[in-house]
Amino acid sequence: MDKPAKTNFDIHPLLKERWSPRSFTGQMVDKETLQRIFEAARWTPSSSNDQPWRFIVGTKGDKTWDMIMETLVEFNQKWAKLAPVLALSIGKKISDKNGRPSRTFIYDVGQSVAHITFQAMHEGLFVHQMGGFSAQKAAEIFNIPEDYQAITAFAIGHKGSPDLLEENFAEMEKSERERHPAGDFVFSKSFGNTSDLF
Amino acid sequence: MDKPAKTNFDIHPLLKERWSPRSFTGQMVDKETLQRIFEAARWTPSSSNDQPWRFIVGTKGDKTWDMIMETLVEFNQKWAKLAPVLALSIGKKISDKNGRPSRTFIYDVGQSVAHITFQAMHEGLFVHQMGGFSAQKAAEIFNIPEDYQAITAFAIGHKGSPDLLEENFAEMEKSERERHPAGDFVFSKSFGNTSDLF
Repeated sequence: MDKPAKTNFDIHPLLKERWSPRSFTGQMVDKETLQRIFEAARWTPSSSNDQPWRFIVGTKGDKTWDMIMETLVEFNQKWAKLAPVLALSIGKKISDKNGRPSRTFIYDVGQSVAHITFQAMHEGLFVHQMGGFSAQKAAEIFNIPEDYQAITAFAIGHKGSPDLLEENFAEMEKSERERHPAGDFVFSKSFGNTSDLF
Repeated sequence: MDKPAKTNFDIHPLLKERWSPRSFTGQMVDKETLQRIFEAARWTPSSSNDQPWRFIVGTKGDKTWDMIMETLVEFNQKWAKLAPVLALSIGKKISDKNGRPSRTFIYDVGQSVAHITFQAMHEGLFVHQMGGFSAQKAAEIFNIPEDYQAITAFAIGHKGSPDLLEENFAEMEKSERERHPAGDFVFSKSFGNTSDLF
């Protein structure tokens, strides 16, 4: 099933075709593909080149995958069990440059997962990110130090059929993708004043 | 000047070629291109589809560009004056879904600027993001409400020659791009334990 974005202006096909499926086929993702996906994260820009991103990655059948699954809320466990790859994104709270709390580490980590998503799409794979997991449980299970923070969980895999999902998820899978038009969020002169671009 | 990432594993050309120049040619960016760039932001994924990103965008010669320039630290003003487009990224702190503080709005906004950067690269343009600006000054100048937060500033334009920059910037422009290897940030089983992928 494809759900291309209903764009008002043309965008790159990898951005247009991107969405967050809950159904994944049973196919595994090979090591070389995952190497390229995390290499893409490596070249993310970051404030002062601090590179605050860390990832814990599990593939189905290994202990790490099971441990990440344990951190997910029940709602996400129900579909994420199909995903061949589960990962956690983690950020370093303190800047390596000046030893002070970073104002942008969460932002930088967000960008690194966008890089992962873009590379995954390029490899024919899809990513589904989740806020619904316990960062505290993740910290306990994986011994995450105090100056780091688990931010999101995400699944990577080959998109599957909605039929693989339980009834309510199958319906959500088929629902249309919606976004506010750009005129609602691109401003000039003053906050809330729509830019002449839109 | 090109500075392709010295990758250990092949990644998408738009990620490999991406870097953050400080020199921009005098060429303006046309309206249609900017429409596509912010449409790319529109289709970013976000927690609960909250779409917490807002942008203030100025083009050189207009009042908004001057106002954004005022918010930059002096270091950034010195090179950003070459940029035909200056923008601020702003995030909504409160989730539209449940009215509670969002744990991921900064992360989501980071992803939206990554989308902007991919689309800009696809259009032959480069983006330079900046943490070095005053969010407080931005809030005053643009009347940003309290439940929103300015997160970064960024420049968009056609990459220029290092010769257009003052001496110390010209040297920085030519310096090599560096990143920790993926084995330093991709873990399994326990935080800090390098994944078998690397």
